[in-house]
Amino acid sequence: MELTGPIVLSDHRYGKAENRIVRIYRETVRHEIRDVNVSTVLRGDFADAYVTGDQAKVLPTDTQKQTAYAFAKQPGLRTIEDYALALADHFVTEIEPVTSARVEVDEYAWQRVPVGGVEHDHTWVRQGAEVRTAAVTVAGAGADRRAWVVGGVKDLTILKSTGSEFAGFLTDDFTVLAPTEDRLLATSLVAEWRFAGTGGVDWDEVYAGVRARLVETFATLHSKALQQTLFEMGKAALAAYPVLAEIRLAAPNKHHFDYDLARFGIENRGEVYHADDRPYGLIHATVARADAPEAGLAWTR
Amino acid sequence: MELTGPIVLSDHRYGKAENRIVRIYRETVRHEIRDVNVSTVLRGDFADAYVTGDQAKVLPTDTQKQTAYAFAKQPGLRTIEDYALALADHFVTEIEPVTSARVEVDEYAWQRVPVGGVEHDHTWVRQGAEVRTAAVTVAGAGADRRAWVVGGVKDLTILKSTGSEFAGFLTDDFTVLAPTEDRLLATSLVAEWRFAGTGGVDWDEVYAGVRARLVETFATLHSKALQQTLFEMGKAALAAYPVLAEIRLAAPNKHHFDYDLARFGIENRGEVYHADDRPYGLIHATVARADAPEAGLAWTR
Amino acid sequence: MELTGPIVLSDHRYGKAENRIVRIYRETVRHEIRDVNVSTVLRGDFADAYVTGDQAKVLPTDTQKQTAYAFAKQPGLRTIEDYALALADHFVTEIEPVTSARVEVDEYAWQRVPVGGVEHDHTWVRQGAEVRTAAVTVAGAGADRRAWVVGGVKDLTILKSTGSEFAGFLTDDFTVLAPTEDRLLATSLVAEWRFAGTGGVDWDEVYAGVRARLVETFATLHSKALQQTLFEMGKAALAAYPVLAEIRLAAPNKHHFDYDLARFGIENRGEVYHADDRPYGLIHATVARADAPEAGLAWTR
Amino acid sequence: MELTGPIVLSDHRYGKAENRIVRIYRETVRHEIRDVNVSTVLRGDFADAYVTGDQAKVLPTDTQKQTAYAFAKQPGLRTIEDYALALADHFVTEIEPVTSARVEVDEYAWQRVPVGGVEHDHTWVRQGAEVRTAAVTVAGAGADRRAWVVGGVKDLTILKSTGSEFAGFLTDDFTVLAPTEDRLLATSLVAEWRFAGTGGVDWDEVYAGVRARLVETFATLHSKALQQTLFEMGKAALAAYPVLAEIRLAAPNKHHFDYDLARFGIENRGEVYHADDRPYGLIHATVARADAPEAGLAWTR
Repeated sequence: MELTGPIVLSDHRYGKAENRIVRIYRETVRHEIRDVNVSTVLRGDFADAYVTGDQAKVLPTDTQKQTAYAFAKQPGLRTIEDYALALADHFVTEIEPVTSARVEVDEYAWQRVPVGGVEHDHTWVRQGAEVRTAAVTVAGAGADRRAWVVGGVKDLTILKSTGSEFAGFLTDDFTVLAPTEDRLLATSLVAEWRFAGTGGVDWDEVYAGVRARLVETFATLHSKALQQTLFEMGKAALAAYPVLAEIRLAAPNKHHFDYDLARFGIENRGEVYHADDRPYGLIHATVARADAPEAGLAWTR
Repeated sequence: MELTGPIVLSDHRYGKAENRIVRIYRETVRHEIRDVNVSTVLRGDFADAYVTGDQAKVLPTDTQKQTAYAFAKQPGLRTIEDYALALADHFVTEIEPVTSARVEVDEYAWQRVPVGGVEHDHTWVRQGAEVRTAAVTVAGAGADRRAWVVGGVKDLTILKSTGSEFAGFLTDDFTVLAPTEDRLLATSLVAEWRFAGTGGVDWDEVYAGVRARLVETFATLHSKALQQTLFEMGKAALAAYPVLAEIRLAAPNKHHFDYDLARFGIENRGEVYHADDRPYGLIHATVARADAPEAGLAWTR
Repeated sequence: MELTGPIVLSDHRYGKAENRIVRIYRETVRHEIRDVNVSTVLRGDFADAYVTGDQAKVLPTDTQKQTAYAFAKQPGLRTIEDYALALADHFVTEIEPVTSARVEVDEYAWQRVPVGGVEHDHTWVRQGAEVRTAAVTVAGAGADRRAWVVGGVKDLTILKSTGSEFAGFLTDDFTVLAPTEDRLLATSLVAEWRFAGTGGVDWDEVYAGVRARLVETFATLHSKALQQTLFEMGKAALAAYPVLAEIRLAAPNKHHFDYDLARFGIENRGEVYHADDRPYGLIHATVARADAPEAGLAWTR
Repeated sequence: MELTGPIVLSDHRYGKAENRIVRIYRETVRHEIRDVNVSTVLRGDFADAYVTGDQAKVLPTDTQKQTAYAFAKQPGLRTIEDYALALADHFVTEIEPVTSARVEVDEYAWQRVPVGGVEHDHTWVRQGAEVRTAAVTVAGAGADRRAWVVGGVKDLTILKSTGSEFAGFLTDDFTVLAPTEDRLLATSLVAEWRFAGTGGVDWDEVYAGVRARLVETFATLHSKALQQTLFEMGKAALAAYPVLAEIRLAAPNKHHFDYDLARFGIENRGEVYHADDRPYGLIHATVARADAPEAGLAWTR
């Protein structure tokens, strides 16, 4: 099939990615730290920059960077959700050609080091590999303003050494996998939860609570498949937090293979595994409230 | 806002990611190599696996893996687009609960080594960092079959040392960037092009041709901004290949900063740069034919 | 200078790298986990394999892999130091051409998840990015046996927001850095400690104790430079553990630059930083007991 | 064994790692590019900085960075070996406490893009994943000056689909590997060659020539093991270049496993492979001229 229509710019957006900002609160001797990676994306009346090369309406990505650092001071960076909302609102409100702004933030956790059994005032070690995330979109200003907040966690690596089976599955000519009643189950979870609204939410409390529900469900549910585990994890999170409209989970099945030691006359009853790199199963589930409001631009990157 | 509706599974999919397959054709002494990374994703009637834990309709991801390797032998792996179409069709046609299948393939290029000025028959070195990509989706079988092919290239790192400016942009209180009439411009391009149809296309010829148009346009266009460069690159690709409906370009602006040597009494006229890691500008452009058919599932991951 | 002497094999070694072994102890309902990455290296009478291609004395790297997995079951994998000693001894004792064996192990830490305030029996999340390491070398068997153990930690990322200065340094024509009385100091520490002997050591206790001394010293010492901090960290570790002969510390100075907000009329008193990626200072220090025994093959990779 | 001796600083060094410098030569319309990653390391009279915190003799790593960028302009960056020699000599000669300096450089290759069949004057794409390396050490100034140059290549990924066997190896109770007469052999080579002297060498010619010998030998030698292949590769390089004293090769055996398709009634005669990630064999060989001068500090990082 050959097309003959005119060639047009059909979509566009631009921004500054991966601003690595560290914010220290030092009003008292007990400092606080926020360590984040911030990306901004603007949509709006920028077609001329592409089509004719006229940059008159383009706010430089360098300016977006400066603003991201400035906003870490004032209004500040206490929670990544509020910071992102403020930054996104600024771009939509103050920069005329911008119709919507998206701010994505990764936050790295730090843990105070113990000295003589007491938490230190201004020294931390990096805690865990997992990352707290937020993705905030604001479209329109004033009466037309709409905003969406998506919280999340990624690289949450979790493993259970029993309490997981996989059996009774569909087979075809290419199926050689044996069913198993007891396997090791491990994943590196990515979860993102969309809030029904943006007002009056205790972001930190929801983050801690959702994470706890996800982890507890993974631990205590006897798993018939990673699919089932993900659904129940999502359900537990939504049930606990009616402020959530939806949660999306993506989980690689990080395969751990029982190592064949029988060849050497050694019994291996789920004791020695090879942790394989690739390939891996990859399971996605989205769990939602039936009365969730429209997602709008919440998931639009 | 608190929600009270029932909690439901609203979306799901699953597959096997990153099957690292190498295919050697050795019918003659002059071997051929295809080196790929294959991911499969299935959608369909799998809700029970999530909601009740019943796996009766779930084709294991292990089986998807076996099939991906088997198909590399027969029908084979000459072009990644045809291989992906065959594999996706298989899942939709042969596995009853599957309503659509997506197969994504990355291909790593190898170059024959020269020995005494002659290309060697069965030895290669890895060529370049860039990766050829394909993403194929098939939905439905028989008369209802629909298929979409997206070709692409990623990690195509390209740099020009002059012929690029950035000036006349919008400014605000946070703007400190100086306009420049001559800068170094570098990016690591990701481009994906959607075909208008799937029949009668010479995939290799389009790949080579699109890549050439992208590279040539980057080189020869005097750039007023990366935005403009991307639009013209996309336009050149579509103009050359009427079989293409749309091309999506994403380009990090890999900043190279003029290093300040004046402090040491040394003149630096665009000769010494610091190649910075983060942050980076990130520009997106989609260029399309006005008469392009609907994208359907082409872009749905 | 042109050389004319014969061309000879002057050194060689080989092994299997990165065996990703997970060991579960499941004798009771409260499982234990050890998650490791094991590399083996053999030295010995292998020159023929290189010079003539005769493999008669070469134990395949595949066999080394099988042995590494088998030894995780029996004698087992309670501490990485004892496991590595057993595996290295096996190669030197049982495989005739082997004159020395080195086993390097990285161990990834896991933390039990809390469920209802209680640690779960068989579910964990990955704890921290830091990695415990061991490098064990055994040369000779029977009466000639010598062994060296090096314990360590890597990727221990630590940061203090005050209590660090850098001033009074040497300057030359290329020096533009301003001295500072109060800066943020961060590093990702690699430390390796050589034991004076291999018998009667509580490996876990030393690991925990050395890590605690390193972290506490970093926190509490007012730092005049990362050099001084490293020396004092090493000193504290050796002082606490007379079983240690030597400690080697390598620390990138992960620069955090005060962000210039004064341009926007905003005061920034050590509150907003840019965390830079590259370049970074890289400081090395070795601290030793004056009466330490010879290092022998302890550091020979 | 418990030690009681005093605790001392037994070794130390410091520097600036990973300066990402791009040098453009633009004297004519046909620009030239050098893209490098430079690390500097100084040794000398710096013990006070560690032991007492006195920085009076410490040249800041920031100053080392400034100098690395300044030297890219003048004397310039035509070959990484000459650049590194100039920079190392500067530190040893000009900075009083420095007794030796080491400069390590990685160089990334760029290839001019073709436009209408002609190489473009100022636009390039990144060529290959392989990296050219240099490690230069200078100790002493004036009559006491000694210098060592090590050239190299890393990440040179090479594969042959036949012409490789592995058989006749040692076996023990843990050996299950079957001998093979025809296998796929692949590696990602790291090679470093030490020059006998530093004067009168055409660095570029040696680099190109050594790389060609390595690749040709890998291709044409029927391999009885990767060990043998490495030895012959090293031998070929030294034989061609009498200015070389020694070459060190490290090669992961990137395993490609024949995929078992017989289970599906499909024959697989070395046509479909799984490219595995970990573990991998890791083979080291050092090949030297018998009359090579002492290595001195050439290999001391």
